[in-house]
Order: sequence, then C-alpha cells, then structure tokens
Amino acid sequence: MSSTFQQLKLSHSGALQLLLAAVERATAMRKPQCIAVVDDSCNLLAFVRMDDAKILAEGSAIRKAKTAASSRVPTGDMEDGLAVKLAAATEGNTTNLKGGLPIIVDGQVIGGIGVGSGTGDEDREVGNAALVGFAGAQTFQFD
Amino acid sequence: MSSTFQQLKLSHSGALQLLLAAVERATAMRKPQCIAVVDDSCNLLAFVRMDDAKILAEGSAIRKAKTAASSRVPTGDMEDGLAVKLAAATEGNTTNLKGGLPIIVDGQVIGGIGVGSGTGDEDREVGNAALVGFAGAQTFQFD
Amino acid sequence: MSSTFQQLKLSHSGALQLLLAAVERATAMRKPQCIAVVDDSCNLLAFVRMDDAKILAEGSAIRKAKTAASSRVPTGDMEDGLAVKLAAATEGNTTNLKGGLPIIVDGQVIGGIGVGSGTGDEDREVGNAALVGFAGAQTFQFD
Amino acid sequence: MSSTFQQLKLSHSGALQLLLAAVERATAMRKPQCIAVVDDSCNLLAFVRMDDAKILAEGSAIRKAKTAASSRVPTGDMEDGLAVKLAAATEGNTTNLKGGLPIIVDGQVIGGIGVGSGTGDEDREVGNAALVGFAGAQTFQFD
Repeated sequence: MSSTFQQLKLSHSGALQLLLAAVERATAMRKPQCIAVVDDSCNLLAFVRMDDAKILAEGSAIRKAKTAASSRVPTGDMEDGLAVKLAAATEGNTTNLKGGLPIIVDGQVIGGIGVGSGTGDEDREVGNAALVGFAGAQTFQFD
Repeated sequence: MSSTFQQLKLSHSGALQLLLAAVERATAMRKPQCIAVVDDSCNLLAFVRMDDAKILAEGSAIRKAKTAASSRVPTGDMEDGLAVKLAAATEGNTTNLKGGLPIIVDGQVIGGIGVGSGTGDEDREVGNAALVGFAGAQTFQFD
Repeated sequence: MSSTFQQLKLSHSGALQLLLAAVERATAMRKPQCIAVVDDSCNLLAFVRMDDAKILAEGSAIRKAKTAASSRVPTGDMEDGLAVKLAAATEGNTTNLKGGLPIIVDGQVIGGIGVGSGTGDEDREVGNAALVGFAGAQTFQFD
Repeated sequence: MSSTFQQLKLSHSGALQLLLAAVERATAMRKPQCIAVVDDSCNLLAFVRMDDAKILAEGSAIRKAKTAASSRVPTGDMEDGLAVKLAAATEGNTTNLKGGLPIIVDGQVIGGIGVGSGTGDEDREVGNAALVGFAGAQTFQFD
C-alpha cells in the first residue's frame, strides 16, 4: 500500500461562498443565523454570526458542522439514546440537533456546514440552500 | 447593508437595580437565592449569592440568565429532548431549568436575569419581581 | 479537639456594600472597573462589570479576589517565578496581578475583593476604598 | 443613572467586509492567514482560515481579536511580565502576540480583528489593511 494519498479539500474560497449563500437565504427568510463551515478534519474554516442571531448558537452551529463532517450524514436523525452517549463521549462535539449537513462532492465528504439560531427545519433549509449553489455538491431533502 | 448599527444596552446601574430588587423579593420570601444578570451578549454584568443560598446555584443562575438572553424567552418551557441536545451543544450554557427571564425593553432584548436556589417557581417569582420594578421592562406570568 | 467550630463569614449584604463602595470610587475616578467579592472559600459572592470596563477583566477580577482570599495578602507582590508556578498549578486561579485585597475583620480573613480593568495601581485604589468604608476591615497602603 | 444606553455595534455585514478585505491583502502578500472578527463583547462575529494557513492559528487569531476589542489597543506592545499574568488570569484569552487591532469608529470600540499565521508584522499589516478599507475606522501605523 502507498504511504500517501491525494484528498479533495474544501478551499477557503469555497467555504466563504457557502457562508455568503447561507447568509443570503437567511436574510430572505428574515431569520438571522449563526453559520459555520468546517473542513473534513472538523476544523473551522469559516463562520459568521448574523445580526440578532442567538449568541449561544455560535457553539451549536460549529458542533453541527463538525458532526455532519464526521458522520457524513445530516444531523438530527440519530437515535436519541445513542446521541446522548456520543455527545458525552466527544465533549459535546457530536450533536443531534438539526441543521448540520455534510459537504459532499464527487462522493467525497470535504466538510460540513452547520446552521443554528432558528428552528431545526429553518436551520436545515439555510444549510441546504448553501449546498444547492455549490457546484457538484450533494443536496438534501427533508420531510 | 450598513456596517454598524445602534443598539440599546443594559447599564451596570440597571443591572444592580435588578439585583437589589431580586434580593428584596427573595428576602421577603425567606428564600435565599443566587441572582445573575447578563447583557445581550451573555456576558456577566452583575451577580450576588445570598446568605444560605446553594453554592452550586451560582452556575445554574448564571446559565439561566444566559439562556434567557440568548433565546429571548423565559427558561423552562423547552421540550426536554431538545433541551438536552442544546445543553450538550453549548457546553452546558443552555439550560431548561426554570428561573431565567429575558430583559426586554422597547421590544429589544437587552439581557437576562437568572435566579437559582429555590424551586423553579420561586426562582421565576424572584426574577419577575425584579423586572416588575424595572422601567419599561416586559414582565411574565406563569401558571 | 472539637469536631466543629464557629467562623466569621461575610454576608451578601456586606459583599454588596463593598461592591457599591467600589463602584462609587471607580465612578469618581472615571475609570470603569470589574469588581468581584468572594468569601473565605473563594466562591463568588458578588460581582459587577461597569459600563465600558474591559470584558476580559471579568475573569481577572474574580481571580484577584480568589487569590487574595486564599493567600490572605494583597495580590501583586509575589516573586514572579513563584507566581507563574502557582498560576499553572491552580488552573490560573492564583494571579499576581495587582488589584486583589483580602477582606480581614478582627484578624480573620472573611473574603477577598478583586478589581480589574484599570492599571494595577488604580485597581488597588478602588479595592482599598471599598475596605476603608467597611466597618472593622483592615486597609492597605501601597507605595 | 440611566438603566439603559445606546451603543454602536458592528454588523455582520461589516464583519464580513473586514474579513474579505483581510483575505484580499493576505492573498496579495501570498501569506495565508487565519482571520477573526469579534464584536465589542468579544463574541465571534466572523472567521476564515485561508488555504495553507496554520491550523493552530485559529485559536491565536480569535484571542488576538478578543484582546484588542477588550483592551482597545493593538496587541503586542504590552510589557511581557504583565502579559503572562493577564494570559493566565483570563484563560489564555489575553494575548500579547502581534496581530490584534481594535475596530474603532467615531471613537467607540465596536470590536476587534485578529490575524494569525504569518509573522507578527505580517499579521498586523493584514489587519490594518482591513481597517483602512472600513468607513470611519481608525487605522494604525507600526514601526
């Protein structure tokens, strides 16, 4: 086996594009949000807290992004008993709040976007709107 | 969009007034309390722990104040499943214990007051008594 | 030996009196401050952050109060090499910043007051002004 | 004394503008950076980590922004003995690394920008370039 490999990465330019698209949707909805984008390593790439968004949503938006990037599926659909154990075992970084979406391009997870301050469904809508405008990204539909 | 805006802030004078009014009510009830006041950014503005109040209520009173300032509604009425997730995702800062009330003047949230050491209903009564005496502040009625 | 003993304690009323006296002096100096009062157990009794005081001084004011209550002498005069070790060994709670003063009545340390946001000398002046107005409290003179 | 007051705040739109201007300068310098913008309360408003910027500079950039917003002067010019004490007393949030600048408009501190991943002087240059393009903001010259 090879000792190194190539990996697709999300650039800061791509992260800012996601951020701005999310801000645009949240503005149109008149629902201010905290929006975080992390890379595939769960490290923060970009963040913004919109005017009048909830202060405490800074932490939850970042954790939603991390959870989605790590688990590779949207947050919020985990079995609750498992979710509590995972939260406890990861210093709160794994969250089952709705609003985290993996950023998947060409079948590869290159990061996550997390949105928080609205209802779970509003948060998901904003995150997905950002993905819709991102070339090649997988998008999500929720009931 | 503008790069700056004006916002109403709670002064330390206002915070101390809230604190003293809460102490007065708690004294009349013979129920010593921890009382915290935070600003709209969830930073601590004023705090007091009354004689015989529970030591560990320091932390819960402060978190009640933060939660109310951030969520803009009284604490304690969140759905419990959601509350646990939000607590985990915000390092314990979001709490669903009763006793946190937003401080709302002219329709703007300028902070939160958190009261802890009594029963949830006693905590709410003390917090609301402080708001009743605060010029222009929204007050709350609980069943 | 007896299995229990009586101890002189600082009341919340006394703590608030110290707080208000410190605010009065800081106001007269036109130097807004963060002011913390802890009891002999180093637990927070009272706190206020004045308008325009430095946000990050919340933590340092509280730690100055704790250090003074624990060490029973004013903060700031420790040998610096020792101070670094004590800070590291106490999770930052021991600080050698000026502005923490023990509250000593009848030769007993009943707490500490910590002041932060000004220069070290300004912080000390505000803390001492609060002690000067506190019946029976030892006061301090600095060069 | 009044219980409330009006205060000038930095909008998310203003924060993003600062972020993009800083990215532009860093790109021109071919020196990727982590860039953080906090409000006057030291809460994160916006952040970006550029491609190839140092991962660990996320934390230092944010703390530089907080320190500048709280102290109201550029970071890096504090006496080192004092700086170590302040860092320890504020959970590492106060830093004396170069690269944090207060955002001052109409004489009011409305936040801080922190830049990290280059040399201290490069960090300062990027932060100041962002301020130069911000309407009404005070700028800084360093030797």
